[in-house]
Amino acid sequence: MRDLTEETMNKETIYEGRVFNVELHDVKLPNGETSRREVVKHPGAVAIAPVTSDNKILLVQQFRKPLEKMIYELPAGKREAGEEAAVTARRELEEETGVSAEALHWVTSFYTSPGFADELIDIYTAEGLTTGEAHTEEDEFVNVVELSLEEAEKLVENGGIHDAKTAFVIQYLRLQEMKNRLG
Amino acid sequence: MRDLTEETMNKETIYEGRVFNVELHDVKLPNGETSRREVVKHPGAVAIAPVTSDNKILLVQQFRKPLEKMIYELPAGKREAGEEAAVTARRELEEETGVSAEALHWVTSFYTSPGFADELIDIYTAEGLTTGEAHTEEDEFVNVVELSLEEAEKLVENGGIHDAKTAFVIQYLRLQEMKNRLG
Repeated sequence: MRDLTEETMNKETIYEGRVFNVELHDVKLPNGETSRREVVKHPGAVAIAPVTSDNKILLVQQFRKPLEKMIYELPAGKREAGEEAAVTARRELEEETGVSAEALHWVTSFYTSPGFADELIDIYTAEGLTTGEAHTEEDEFVNVVELSLEEAEKLVENGGIHDAKTAFVIQYLRLQEMKNRLG
Repeated sequence: MRDLTEETMNKETIYEGRVFNVELHDVKLPNGETSRREVVKHPGAVAIAPVTSDNKILLVQQFRKPLEKMIYELPAGKREAGEEAAVTARRELEEETGVSAEALHWVTSFYTSPGFADELIDIYTAEGLTTGEAHTEEDEFVNVVELSLEEAEKLVENGGIHDAKTAFVIQYLRLQEMKNRLG
């Protein structure tokens, strides 16, 4: 495979925010030409798929300012410096839904928008759920909903679930279910 | 369900780039308090899963500056103003892999990072492939690889595929395959 590395000639931070920073990178391309890359630097995130004992999934409905609408998503949150992903996952699950989990299973991690952002998201499933009281952060407001996997899959198919991490996990859980059925 | 809409009090564009803009929104929260939201405005994207007649998937390997490494992804590209998503999909597939497709099927669309960006990505599968010559844009360099679905699924499981849209589609194709087997 050809090595397609782009060498950084110069790097400038043009915005430092609460959620992300923005950097401009002047690069040397594999063919020797130069170009500029726009980069969103993000601390990373975790998302948790809480599955109840009767095989339902808990989702949160949240207003997302970039989209100017409410959408369904897995409970999720930003990574914090020095905090392990699994610890953040338990904390975010409890804050957003009030649910604490006996067992947390890491499923995978992926970049959400590798073309312009470095956000890496770690995906977990959570089982052995105990319901408590939600206590979201001061600027965070969510509705909690419970869906069967079949309902959730239909929402992915008809566009009612419009979020990458959530669509991924619903398919993951359905795939595990089918693998179990096929033995 | 509680309406959790955040009202925009003030909006400012602080960066206008080639790939995205950055806006700051001062908002009134559902509880009447105020907060600031950082928003990446992106034109949207398409991604295509090209499936060969012997059930292999074509992926591209690309250096992604935000990640400072090469990763495997579906052929993909940004939406262009006034161009239909399906047209962009055919064009990007041909540019990046040299492949033209008889049939394009829309699978779903999702937001990649709804917490801070409005990027919406339309996902397609492509069949009836004819190989031609790739002709990428002047600052775009890719390697094309062909994987069986089983190989691709293993890469998702062991972290070799690290991209949300690509992980989603591989599971989608496996799920369709299993549904066919189960009748």
